[in-house]
Amino acid sequence: QRETAVEIDEPGVATGLAVTGAGGEILFVEAAALPDGESGLQITGQLGDVMRESAQIALAHVRSHAGGLGLGDAVTDRPYHVHVPAGATPKDGPSAGVAMTATLASLVSGRRVRGDVGMTGEITLQGKVLPVGGITAKVLAAHRAGLAEVILPGRNAPDLDEVPDEVREAVQIHLVDRIEDALAIALEAPEALAA
Amino acid sequence: QRETAVEIDEPGVATGLAVTGAGGEILFVEAAALPDGESGLQITGQLGDVMRESAQIALAHVRSHAGGLGLGDAVTDRPYHVHVPAGATPKDGPSAGVAMTATLASLVSGRRVRGDVGMTGEITLQGKVLPVGGITAKVLAAHRAGLAEVILPGRNAPDLDEVPDEVREAVQIHLVDRIEDALAIALEAPEALAA
Amino acid sequence: QRETAVEIDEPGVATGLAVTGAGGEILFVEAAALPDGESGLQITGQLGDVMRESAQIALAHVRSHAGGLGLGDAVTDRPYHVHVPAGATPKDGPSAGVAMTATLASLVSGRRVRGDVGMTGEITLQGKVLPVGGITAKVLAAHRAGLAEVILPGRNAPDLDEVPDEVREAVQIHLVDRIEDALAIALEAPEALAA
Amino acid sequence: QRETAVEIDEPGVATGLAVTGAGGEILFVEAAALPDGESGLQITGQLGDVMRESAQIALAHVRSHAGGLGLGDAVTDRPYHVHVPAGATPKDGPSAGVAMTATLASLVSGRRVRGDVGMTGEITLQGKVLPVGGITAKVLAAHRAGLAEVILPGRNAPDLDEVPDEVREAVQIHLVDRIEDALAIALEAPEALAA
Amino acid sequence: QRETAVEIDEPGVATGLAVTGAGGEILFVEAAALPDGESGLQITGQLGDVMRESAQIALAHVRSHAGGLGLGDAVTDRPYHVHVPAGATPKDGPSAGVAMTATLASLVSGRRVRGDVGMTGEITLQGKVLPVGGITAKVLAAHRAGLAEVILPGRNAPDLDEVPDEVREAVQIHLVDRIEDALAIALEAPEALAA
Amino acid sequence: QRETAVEIDEPGVATGLAVTGAGGEILFVEAAALPDGESGLQITGQLGDVMRESAQIALAHVRSHAGGLGLGDAVTDRPYHVHVPAGATPKDGPSAGVAMTATLASLVSGRRVRGDVGMTGEITLQGKVLPVGGITAKVLAAHRAGLAEVILPGRNAPDLDEVPDEVREAVQIHLVDRIEDALAIALEAPEALAA
Ligand SMILES: [Ca+2]
Ligand SMILES: [Ca+2]
Ligand SMILES: [Ca+2]
Ligand SMILES: [Ca+2]
Ligand SMILES: [Ca+2]
Ligand SMILES: [Ca+2]
Ligand SMILES: [Ca+2]
Ligand SMILES: [Ca+2]
Ligand SMILES: [Ca+2]
Ligand SMILES: [Ca+2]
Ligand SMILES: [Ca+2]
Ligand SMILES: [Ca+2]
Repeated sequence: QRETAVEIDEPGVATGLAVTGAGGEILFVEAAALPDGESGLQITGQLGDVMRESAQIALAHVRSHAGGLGLGDAVTDRPYHVHVPAGATPKDGPSAGVAMTATLASLVSGRRVRGDVGMTGEITLQGKVLPVGGITAKVLAAHRAGLAEVILPGRNAPDLDEVPDEVREAVQIHLVDRIEDALAIALEAPEALAA
Repeated sequence: QRETAVEIDEPGVATGLAVTGAGGEILFVEAAALPDGESGLQITGQLGDVMRESAQIALAHVRSHAGGLGLGDAVTDRPYHVHVPAGATPKDGPSAGVAMTATLASLVSGRRVRGDVGMTGEITLQGKVLPVGGITAKVLAAHRAGLAEVILPGRNAPDLDEVPDEVREAVQIHLVDRIEDALAIALEAPEALAA
Repeated sequence: QRETAVEIDEPGVATGLAVTGAGGEILFVEAAALPDGESGLQITGQLGDVMRESAQIALAHVRSHAGGLGLGDAVTDRPYHVHVPAGATPKDGPSAGVAMTATLASLVSGRRVRGDVGMTGEITLQGKVLPVGGITAKVLAAHRAGLAEVILPGRNAPDLDEVPDEVREAVQIHLVDRIEDALAIALEAPEALAA
Repeated sequence: QRETAVEIDEPGVATGLAVTGAGGEILFVEAAALPDGESGLQITGQLGDVMRESAQIALAHVRSHAGGLGLGDAVTDRPYHVHVPAGATPKDGPSAGVAMTATLASLVSGRRVRGDVGMTGEITLQGKVLPVGGITAKVLAAHRAGLAEVILPGRNAPDLDEVPDEVREAVQIHLVDRIEDALAIALEAPEALAA
Repeated sequence: QRETAVEIDEPGVATGLAVTGAGGEILFVEAAALPDGESGLQITGQLGDVMRESAQIALAHVRSHAGGLGLGDAVTDRPYHVHVPAGATPKDGPSAGVAMTATLASLVSGRRVRGDVGMTGEITLQGKVLPVGGITAKVLAAHRAGLAEVILPGRNAPDLDEVPDEVREAVQIHLVDRIEDALAIALEAPEALAA
Repeated sequence: QRETAVEIDEPGVATGLAVTGAGGEILFVEAAALPDGESGLQITGQLGDVMRESAQIALAHVRSHAGGLGLGDAVTDRPYHVHVPAGATPKDGPSAGVAMTATLASLVSGRRVRGDVGMTGEITLQGKVLPVGGITAKVLAAHRAGLAEVILPGRNAPDLDEVPDEVREAVQIHLVDRIEDALAIALEAPEALAA
């Protein structure tokens, strides 16, 4: 049962793009901030060691660059939990880094991630977005799942040649080299405060 | 010696539905809050890593969504212990997530879980209820154990075709997509305070 | 060198019943409360993972139900140590749960466990006593070791058919379904305070 | 290069008796109290898991029974280190329990362990001394190393039949069932305070 | 996709030189200081145990020698994170020690590491720079990636015989025996404060 | 590239003697005190478990005997780091114990270890110096590396028969049974304070 695009109601969820033996698919990356305790990171979803490190990098980037990400002076000194359903499916690799960072930035800023945007890309501690594999399958999966836009690493531009024209016309593609650019696209504007 | 439905006398116990090589059966998920110490989660019952992660997800969801779950401003900054008897039987898989969340929500809110309701379903950190396997065997086991109602994931609706009519008539089935809906069914009303 | 019944001089020791390849035998479960430090549980005696979990469950039950166990408002926020001699003999299984709970309840309440009472049974976090194996061998061992009474899980009643009549006449058998009932039998009355 | 009896100049060293493939020998058990930090136990000397547990049991006994051991109201809430030279020789088994307890009791009380007394025996958390193996080889080794007295578990009395008469005449043997009795023999009197 | 020299915009990144089965290449070593929490070091990038120890040595050197490194009285009592992209590529060996130290010294001092300087060398806790392998391949890689200068261990001087003359003319080579000398070359001057 | 004797400029480095498949050699043992944090010991240099325990023993001895070592009332309640270059070379065994203790005593006291003195020997928690292997190869290596004096365990005296006369004449040999005696030789006098 593959996931499809959904309206996202609260901060702390982003839509990632993955590749499995059966082709591309979308997956959701969830995060929660625990109400108190020592700062730290709990990770679930049967993630392999590379993907666990991605979550650590994403959180360290958000914590050390909160100002530069335009997140205000959010309090990040709390324990966080990152989960990637489905819970019994093993997952690995660095390409969920952008989605993990978006999820955590969403949670910290209180701004929702847009539900019609999928994203893939490795992130570095300093916020660079590095190229990943499976671009064609991922864009096709985004289209199939009903996403309107996808965010890809700039250095993956050559891979877009393989994406069919009709898909490229239906899905708006953003190429980014820095996580700030991905967040500017993916995060919704702050909620207007009720007067 | 299979378990059967029991009257539940105190908060912190819920009735789950499981599948083993010998068919479906019910199991009890227990939780306790330790009187003090650092927040954390101790897990027993020879649970495999997927099921241990389910318990972590359930607790993180309850801790980060206590308000939205209608649990009042319960204090959740304590150590918790989750146990699934029998203690020597290895168990694994994500499908006890709903029962684990119900158990912890019960404990935190002081509202008992109804003893005549069985439940199965994977939970995500944001409270979505995801489909699980073994639906027919689980509903049959619930019936056999004397349960009056069962809570199942909405996305498992197609699996109900396999459940015999006489069982469907005897057992009331609730399909839910969110943990809030499961808790609304499973938790008893708060005890009236003595005047 | 098998153990035999002894007079128990101080709180924190209970007599369990075990089964080995060589038949039943009694064993002692010891506990100590360390004078200060973070709450926690140190376990020794070459215990396997199921038996280690039994000790965790026993302590969590005592800590979360101290009031209901009639233990007064004992302070349980200390580190505990549970040991099962002999130190070089590997041991495993859930059936020492009742003895472990009795040992810890004794320590916390300052009431000695009766030295002429043996006990076996799995315990759950909520205090249910679940059935265990080897009942006949255990009752025979209790008799051989000179114990006057044994506490067994209620759901093991059918196994008593196998116990020889002369043993059943010599040893008083208590069947219990809840740990409170086991403790009511096993713990001595509080010491009278000197006037 | 086997060890021989030595004059012990400071608290925190006791003489144990061990058996190896090459026969019995004596070994020294050393302990130190670290000047500050969280209470805990660091263990070195390539000790196997049973012997590591012996050190944990010895420290827990001393910490929880300091009053009953006649050690005054010593402060035991510090980190301790137990070492058994030689550092590259793997060692295991429960029989150093009495020597470990004597070493720690010495350190805590400031009373030296007598250098002419060797000791062997398993200890339990409540202070019972349990029988161990290799009694004949150990007593011979004590004699060969120049020790004047040895402390053995009372339940090992039958093993003394195997010890040659001339050794039994040369070495004074103490049989003990409780650690208090071992400590009464092994610890020197407190230093007289300078007036 | 090999990395090439880049302008470095912020403190906490240095350019290292590595050797793989496919020849030499440059890699970036990133560091971040987390805003609060216990001092410690989180390491990502699928680093092997020798390379993880290099990061520990680098941080311990910076923390214990902050004054001597001319870093002012920087506050180093915070958690640090070191990452070496790409995240899915296993890496090991001691030769990134100099780059790791430069990255951390940069972060602590707020001075950027020059983007046109590559570096290789093992570091010791006291700041010595020890020789490493693959010097020729590393210098060739630095040249190919567009770096203007490289820092090498002094004890690797004999290896420079293998570097082609045209490369030695294009790339300025610094031989250093102490980390202070490497930092004097690699770190940019402090930013002038706006008046 | 073997190490040779060097002038030691700051406290926290000592010269050890080791034996490898290729004969004896000298190695440096480095230590650093981290500016703050919980007391503890970080160990690097690919040390095996016996050598790691040596470092723990050395630190515990220094911390528990600071007064008796003539180190004044140094503050030892800090985290320490011990490193033995080269970082990628696995090392093991107890014979660096004396050098580790000298390094740490140097660091704590602020007195440098003499750079022309090599040392080998196992240390116990109470400060005894135990014999080690490879004495001949170690003394030859000390001579070859340009060291003027070596410190050896007293119980290794018989091994000196194997050392050639010309080496014994060139290198001054100290035999010690206690770590205090080794430190009295190895540590330089305290720096005179500038008036
Ligand atoms: Ca708290
Ligand atoms: Ca892996
Ligand atoms: Ca507490
Ligand atoms: Ca698994
Ligand atoms: Ca304390
Ligand atoms: Ca097991
Ligand atoms: Ca402290
Ligand atoms: Ca073992
Ligand atoms: Ca904090
Ligand atoms: Ca390795
Ligand atoms: Ca601090
Ligand atoms: Ca080893």
